[in-house]
Amino acid sequence: MALDLLPVVSATGGACCTPLTRDAITEQAAVGLSQVLKALADPARLRLLSLIASHDGAEACVCDLTEPVGLSQPTVSHHLKVLVDAGLVTRDKRGVWAYYALVPGALDAVTHQLGTHLTAGAAS
Amino acid sequence: MALDLLPVVSATGGACCTPLTRDAITEQAAVGLSQVLKALADPARLRLLSLIASHDGAEACVCDLTEPVGLSQPTVSHHLKVLVDAGLVTRDKRGVWAYYALVPGALDAVTHQLGTHLTAGAAS
Repeated sequence: MALDLLPVVSATGGACCTPLTRDAITEQAAVGLSQVLKALADPARLRLLSLIASHDGAEACVCDLTEPVGLSQPTVSHHLKVLVDAGLVTRDKRGVWAYYALVPGALDAVTHQLGTHLTAGAAS
Repeated sequence: MALDLLPVVSATGGACCTPLTRDAITEQAAVGLSQVLKALADPARLRLLSLIASHDGAEACVCDLTEPVGLSQPTVSHHLKVLVDAGLVTRDKRGVWAYYALVPGALDAVTHQLGTHLTAGAAS
C-alpha cells in the first residue's frame, strides 16, 4: 500500500512541505467554475461554440449549426440548451429560426478564473 | 414543436444566415480539448490544482492536499491521478511522500485554445 494512500495524521510543518504563496480557490468558486467547465467539456459543444464564434457577429442560425457537427437536430438542440443554461450563449427566436450568440465576456471570465487560481503564484 | 427541432432540409444560404469569418475548431482538436476540460470540470480537482498552484514552486506534498479539500486520502489520490493522466500535473515520489507539481504551460495551452477557437472572430 502506497504511503500516500494512508491517512495523514499531521499535515502541518515538516520537511515535506513547501510554503503557501497565496490562498487557493474557495469551495464556492470551484463549484461555480466547474459547472461552466462541465458545459464546455464535450466535443460537440466545443464545436458548436466554435461555429457560433466563427460566424460574423459571433451569432449563428441553428440552421447553420446542425450539418457541420454531424448530429441530429434534437441532439444539437440539447447541447445548445446546455450552453445557454451555463450562460455561455444566448438564444433568440427571430421569425422561423433560432439564433445563438456568444455571451460577451463569458468565456473570458472562465479563462481569467483559470489563470488566476490555477497557474503558479509568485515564488517567495 | 419548435421549428428549430425540425430537420433542416436546406442549411445553405438564405436570409437567415451570417457569413463565416474563420474556420471552426476541428473535431480532433475538440476531442482533445474536451478531455482536458473534463479533468478540470470538478470542484475537488479545481481546488487541488489551485492548492498545488498556491504552493511555492507550484509543487505540493500530498500530505498538504488532503485536509484542505476535506476528502478522504483515496478520493484525493483518485482526483490527483485524473489530473496526472490529463497532463496537468506531475507526480514525483521522494522519500515517503508523493509531490504533485503543475506542468508548466499545460493550463496556458487550454486557455489559449479556448481563446483561439471560442471567442468572437473579427467582424467582416
